[in-house]
Amino acid sequence: MARFLKKRIENKGSAPGTLIFIGEKKMEESKLSIIDFNKDELKETPIENTSDLIPYKNSDSVTWINIYGLHNTEMIKQIGEIFDLHALLLEDILFTGQRPKLEEFDNCLLTVVKMIRYDDSLKQIHSEQLSLVLGTNFVISFQEQKGDVFEHLRDRIRMNKGRVRNSGSDYLFYSLLDTVVDNYIYSIERIGEQIEEMEDDILDRQDKTFLNDLRVYKREVSYFLKITRPVLDIMMRMLKLETELIKPKTIQYVKDLQDLVIHCSDSLLTYRELLTDFLTIHQTDINNRMNEVMKVLTVFSAIFIPLTFIAGIYGTNFDYLPELHYKYSYFIMLGIMVLAALNMMFYFKRKKWF
Amino acid sequence: MARFLKKRIENKGSAPGTLIFIGEKKMEESKLSIIDFNKDELKETPIENTSDLIPYKNSDSVTWINIYGLHNTEMIKQIGEIFDLHALLLEDILFTGQRPKLEEFDNCLLTVVKMIRYDDSLKQIHSEQLSLVLGTNFVISFQEQKGDVFEHLRDRIRMNKGRVRNSGSDYLFYSLLDTVVDNYIYSIERIGEQIEEMEDDILDRQDKTFLNDLRVYKREVSYFLKITRPVLDIMMRMLKLETELIKPKTIQYVKDLQDLVIHCSDSLLTYRELLTDFLTIHQTDINNRMNEVMKVLTVFSAIFIPLTFIAGIYGTNFDYLPELHYKYSYFIMLGIMVLAALNMMFYFKRKKWF
Amino acid sequence: MARFLKKRIENKGSAPGTLIFIGEKKMEESKLSIIDFNKDELKETPIENTSDLIPYKNSDSVTWINIYGLHNTEMIKQIGEIFDLHALLLEDILFTGQRPKLEEFDNCLLTVVKMIRYDDSLKQIHSEQLSLVLGTNFVISFQEQKGDVFEHLRDRIRMNKGRVRNSGSDYLFYSLLDTVVDNYIYSIERIGEQIEEMEDDILDRQDKTFLNDLRVYKREVSYFLKITRPVLDIMMRMLKLETELIKPKTIQYVKDLQDLVIHCSDSLLTYRELLTDFLTIHQTDINNRMNEVMKVLTVFSAIFIPLTFIAGIYGTNFDYLPELHYKYSYFIMLGIMVLAALNMMFYFKRKKWF
Amino acid sequence: MARFLKKRIENKGSAPGTLIFIGEKKMEESKLSIIDFNKDELKETPIENTSDLIPYKNSDSVTWINIYGLHNTEMIKQIGEIFDLHALLLEDILFTGQRPKLEEFDNCLLTVVKMIRYDDSLKQIHSEQLSLVLGTNFVISFQEQKGDVFEHLRDRIRMNKGRVRNSGSDYLFYSLLDTVVDNYIYSIERIGEQIEEMEDDILDRQDKTFLNDLRVYKREVSYFLKITRPVLDIMMRMLKLETELIKPKTIQYVKDLQDLVIHCSDSLLTYRELLTDFLTIHQTDINNRMNEVMKVLTVFSAIFIPLTFIAGIYGTNFDYLPELHYKYSYFIMLGIMVLAALNMMFYFKRKKWF
Amino acid sequence: MARFLKKRIENKGSAPGTLIFIGEKKMEESKLSIIDFNKDELKETPIENTSDLIPYKNSDSVTWINIYGLHNTEMIKQIGEIFDLHALLLEDILFTGQRPKLEEFDNCLLTVVKMIRYDDSLKQIHSEQLSLVLGTNFVISFQEQKGDVFEHLRDRIRMNKGRVRNSGSDYLFYSLLDTVVDNYIYSIERIGEQIEEMEDDILDRQDKTFLNDLRVYKREVSYFLKITRPVLDIMMRMLKLETELIKPKTIQYVKDLQDLVIHCSDSLLTYRELLTDFLTIHQTDINNRMNEVMKVLTVFSAIFIPLTFIAGIYGTNFDYLPELHYKYSYFIMLGIMVLAALNMMFYFKRKKWF
Repeated sequence: MARFLKKRIENKGSAPGTLIFIGEKKMEESKLSIIDFNKDELKETPIENTSDLIPYKNSDSVTWINIYGLHNTEMIKQIGEIFDLHALLLEDILFTGQRPKLEEFDNCLLTVVKMIRYDDSLKQIHSEQLSLVLGTNFVISFQEQKGDVFEHLRDRIRMNKGRVRNSGSDYLFYSLLDTVVDNYIYSIERIGEQIEEMEDDILDRQDKTFLNDLRVYKREVSYFLKITRPVLDIMMRMLKLETELIKPKTIQYVKDLQDLVIHCSDSLLTYRELLTDFLTIHQTDINNRMNEVMKVLTVFSAIFIPLTFIAGIYGTNFDYLPELHYKYSYFIMLGIMVLAALNMMFYFKRKKWF
Repeated sequence: MARFLKKRIENKGSAPGTLIFIGEKKMEESKLSIIDFNKDELKETPIENTSDLIPYKNSDSVTWINIYGLHNTEMIKQIGEIFDLHALLLEDILFTGQRPKLEEFDNCLLTVVKMIRYDDSLKQIHSEQLSLVLGTNFVISFQEQKGDVFEHLRDRIRMNKGRVRNSGSDYLFYSLLDTVVDNYIYSIERIGEQIEEMEDDILDRQDKTFLNDLRVYKREVSYFLKITRPVLDIMMRMLKLETELIKPKTIQYVKDLQDLVIHCSDSLLTYRELLTDFLTIHQTDINNRMNEVMKVLTVFSAIFIPLTFIAGIYGTNFDYLPELHYKYSYFIMLGIMVLAALNMMFYFKRKKWF
Repeated sequence: MARFLKKRIENKGSAPGTLIFIGEKKMEESKLSIIDFNKDELKETPIENTSDLIPYKNSDSVTWINIYGLHNTEMIKQIGEIFDLHALLLEDILFTGQRPKLEEFDNCLLTVVKMIRYDDSLKQIHSEQLSLVLGTNFVISFQEQKGDVFEHLRDRIRMNKGRVRNSGSDYLFYSLLDTVVDNYIYSIERIGEQIEEMEDDILDRQDKTFLNDLRVYKREVSYFLKITRPVLDIMMRMLKLETELIKPKTIQYVKDLQDLVIHCSDSLLTYRELLTDFLTIHQTDINNRMNEVMKVLTVFSAIFIPLTFIAGIYGTNFDYLPELHYKYSYFIMLGIMVLAALNMMFYFKRKKWF
Repeated sequence: MARFLKKRIENKGSAPGTLIFIGEKKMEESKLSIIDFNKDELKETPIENTSDLIPYKNSDSVTWINIYGLHNTEMIKQIGEIFDLHALLLEDILFTGQRPKLEEFDNCLLTVVKMIRYDDSLKQIHSEQLSLVLGTNFVISFQEQKGDVFEHLRDRIRMNKGRVRNSGSDYLFYSLLDTVVDNYIYSIERIGEQIEEMEDDILDRQDKTFLNDLRVYKREVSYFLKITRPVLDIMMRMLKLETELIKPKTIQYVKDLQDLVIHCSDSLLTYRELLTDFLTIHQTDINNRMNEVMKVLTVFSAIFIPLTFIAGIYGTNFDYLPELHYKYSYFIMLGIMVLAALNMMFYFKRKKWF
Repeated sequence: MARFLKKRIENKGSAPGTLIFIGEKKMEESKLSIIDFNKDELKETPIENTSDLIPYKNSDSVTWINIYGLHNTEMIKQIGEIFDLHALLLEDILFTGQRPKLEEFDNCLLTVVKMIRYDDSLKQIHSEQLSLVLGTNFVISFQEQKGDVFEHLRDRIRMNKGRVRNSGSDYLFYSLLDTVVDNYIYSIERIGEQIEEMEDDILDRQDKTFLNDLRVYKREVSYFLKITRPVLDIMMRMLKLETELIKPKTIQYVKDLQDLVIHCSDSLLTYRELLTDFLTIHQTDINNRMNEVMKVLTVFSAIFIPLTFIAGIYGTNFDYLPELHYKYSYFIMLGIMVLAALNMMFYFKRKKWF
């Protein structure tokens, strides 16, 4: 499947805003869970029925609703109705080939980003779409699959560490994005280490795997950049939004996060440049080696081919070939051969060919 | 014919605003059809005479007028007169080598884009010019040929699915553009799949077809980018327009569409980069292979040429060549040859030449 | 002569604003002609004496004054005095190595552009500087040589076709620029056709002319881009000017022209990219061919050199060489040779070398 | 360790604003020292206890507090409490993989930059993070290690040279940054000298060390650019800040510093371009040399292989081989050989192959 | 010495604003001269003592003070005191490794640019720093060495040609810059001519000097661009300055100058691109030639090596080798050889290898 662009074709004929899940069905059942908290209390309940969510809509506490699995469009539609979400917002969530983006709606904010996991053995980045909806007192997160990077964050909420419990939904929203970006940095670092390791081998390795590694890393860095760059736009726009949803106190944190994303993008660009340099240097090195090979061939050929020719002449069976009959002919021939060979060697030595 | 730039030469001498059809005549007859609808009613009539269009000009319902074939300049002129269209607008529609663009007129909006169809067997993109005129209560679409991508949209209007029937001409206008962009995404995905398939072969295939494929995809991606980039400008300008023609409610949809176009352009840029990388890697791989070939040649030559020379010496017919007459000369010679060959092989082994 | 930058050295010591003609004198005599028109009347008179121009300065009709040949600085100075033109404006007109530009003066507007002619046989672009001065009721055009691209325009004025006769000097000014840009498009298309023709040959031709053609087209496209890009700036600035000289009605036409210039520049950039791709692909193709050549050499050498060596051994004249005297020695040797050759061929076959 | 991106992973799970030191512990103990001065007096005292810093918070004099070693998070937390520093500010200081940045807080300004040291023998840049906090009457500098580039500045303060003693904390802050940038320039110059030295060798050296040097310099220049570019952003933002912390008098100095940083970045970009050119030229040169080698091989082979063949024919032992028995056969053969060789040599001479 | 970045290291420890001359001492003595003029009068006097300059500070006439040689820091300090120049301004003048820049001070404007001289024989650009200080009624120019490009300008002032005598100090300031830019254009043109001359040779020359020339021109063009680009910034900022020092009348001239500088920079970019293309084409041409060489080698080897092998077989001395004893064996062998050779030639001919 085209990895750089997900299929949207099933949707081609349908009206914009129609809810159609576009993506691979990555798990059996959609799951729904909530964490509802304020400074003093915390409630964590598994939700069976979407209607259980209604009381949380206008509560005073902060509610984090998490959904795993997007193929249950009916459930997502119901959630949309409860929290009064725009049809386009829901459509964006279900189309998993989305470009990361921020969209402002009347009553909420949608951010779609990619969660990254770097697979060391495959040397490949796995990404999953994460959609975050920020309302005045809730955050809804939509994930393609079970298993995420937010366990630490949940622990912090549960144990009341850090500022999350004392802050509003905007800080929770920021914390989720911060966790995602932290994972970007971790993955880039993993790739970076492997790329920098390649560097030491660059003038020694000449096998195909080296070239293949180069190619793979280049592709992954390109792919990562494609994911990261729009996140930069998201941060930039988030700082310029004239919304009440993000409080001034949280802005400083978002700025900090923006710096991290710039850092990611800078590092990826530097790695891409490094890999391009590696390729050019590798190519030059191959040419250098070929030159070496050619010199060996040429030196051997240029020395022995003429000598073989001389021997060939005296191997002819002409009746009348006077040199054959002198006593020292053979030794003279050998002498001439040695001189010719030395001469050639001297010539190649001067040319620094060996 | 120059594909990247259509002939405008026939028009060279004529006054700007003179109606001249520039392009290939792609069908026999120009055809005209309308769909007129509002929330409750729908009327679909083939139109024989342009004057039949007059009642639709100031009606309350939304009218979609579609024209196939542009060579009937007289008909287009009449339509222009009925709907009060600027002379330059009509000229733009007739010049099929147009760069995609958005132009604002006093009473309407013109958008010229390319409709894309990807031909798998030819690995080539076919594009056709589509001009859309948005008025307060009508949309006029001009196509070069019969056959388009809008059948699904027509069905939605007929069956009153989605929002089209309940919205104004601006939403219809948006829906047409949305359908065009959906086709872009589908085509890019088709190309993308084929490019990503090539990747697996990159270190195995060395035939000319591979190089040719690379070239063809590169050209098509370039061509596609040339079509897509101006569409981005169109979207950007559409969001900044201070026009009453596009209602605030529709703006959110246009933003969504803009994101999709950015997605297209991003993907095309990534594919272009990928193809450039493929080419470099392919070239390095060729050099690698040549190096292999050279090593084999050199190893064989460097081992056997000196040995042949030695044999040559003892093939000479000198009367006095003492070594020939000793009993073990032949075996000593063979021994020396084996030693020399082993020596060379050891040397090449150490150089990792085989 | 440096084609990408014209000599301004003769002017090095002189004060800015001194009138010195810089360029080649391309014709014997400077020639002056006018077309004076309004809606109803048209007067076309050859002008002998610059003082004949005085009545046209404040007339109600639109006057187009055209000058061929720039070396008659005296005449140009007199025209400058009559129409009250700034000294720097006149200097700009005379310096034919000018970068295309738009300059706003108190009472008039100066545009300097290049008129393009593409010479098919030389595969070269010829450019000539055209300076246009727009006043409230006149346009003055300065050309280096007799012969221009405006004959169609003149006919339209004479026969009162199009809008020129009914519009002011700004529309005439626009029409002149439009004609120039139409010629750009025609030339780009001519080059484009030839470039796209090359594409089919890219994997077949290996002669030097191909490489030379690539080089020539690359240079011409670069040169053309250098001429076109500043025209884009001119258009952009023209739309932003706060001048009374260009009436609102004409603005729509200028926008249309701007689109055409963007189209030109886009096409040139795409062609440049295409040519760069051609070069890389051509280079890869050369390497591919060399690889083929090397394989043939290696296969022949690796098969026959060892065999020749074996034959060489039994060509030696040792007194005691037992194999020579067995009855089937010769046939055994032949057999071994055939086996060795088949072995090698099998090895090379597996390596897909032939 | 990935040099282009420092580990932030240890921090992955912790709440933003939690103080965790991220980096290598580069020294045993954290050290704290202050210089407190005004126009007339100077006090320099080693500080044992962070509480000793309290009186300096609201003093009239300017206080420069310097901390070496960042692993003592407790101490840094206490300093933060005394001077009322934001939790994110402290977190930024402790994360040594920071991208250089400027951050504005309510009561102070944070700048994080890299201090550079160029190691000639390793041809490598060593960088250490420096965080500067500017308050109304104090500057706090945080360094990773003991040993810095500020000794000259301290001397100037002690001996009351220049403007530092007569200016506020903002000038001290500027002076620290100026010293850091001066070291950038010095390092770039050192790298530059070595790069420009390489240039003379470019067509002579063909060993691997040359290629390796190219690679190393390219990487270091990339790395340096990655450090310098954000400093440019810092300068730009510093000039746009609407803060009372930087007085108008100091702005002129910051502008001057900005020019220096642009100079740095310009030079690095030029060096990068130079190195890329070197690589291409080196590669072309290698190809040129290979061409030379090939010509020698071809000339030798093409002359002697046919001659050896001729000799081979007359070395055959056919019973009936008439040429063998004529008297002058041998000399005729020699003559033909000389003619053939001359002929080939003439052919190669004309091709300019030797 | 690093040419792209001048040493500022001597200054590393000193306070900003301390006057230290950084650069090579290019002449024995610093020299001072003035030209003082207004519409009617002109006074040109050599100045021995800086105090002689005091009367010119507030005079009504325009005074041009020129200083050759910058190592006499004492003299420059005194001039600074007389004309009330900022300490940073003087420091900028003395640091000859300055990036071209414009700096606005309270009472004056500083512009630092490079004066260019192109040395044809060395194919190298020599640059010298020129600092211009514009005050209300004076211009002070600081040059590193005696000998400049302003002699023509001085003559124009002396003979009252052009506008200089009738205008203020701002026009003089402009005239100096205009002269400097005229020299840029002249130098670029000289380089350009040589580059365009190279183009004809590109497919003929294969010696090292060609490659070396390419390298040298590339470097010089890079260097020139590095000097020219900041001049563009200077022009842009000059047009945006809100200063009384430059009168509106002069602005038109500055705009004209800006166009020239853009022209310079455009031309340099085009030449850089041309040179890069040259290099790629040269490289492809080398590969083409190598291919030719390889083909010759392969054709010779593939034809003669098998033939030599056949001859080798019949040169063996086996007792029982039946073919040797037939009467026509020799002729049959010759025949087979001719057929094999013809066959190979036909094969190579079909492959278009010769």
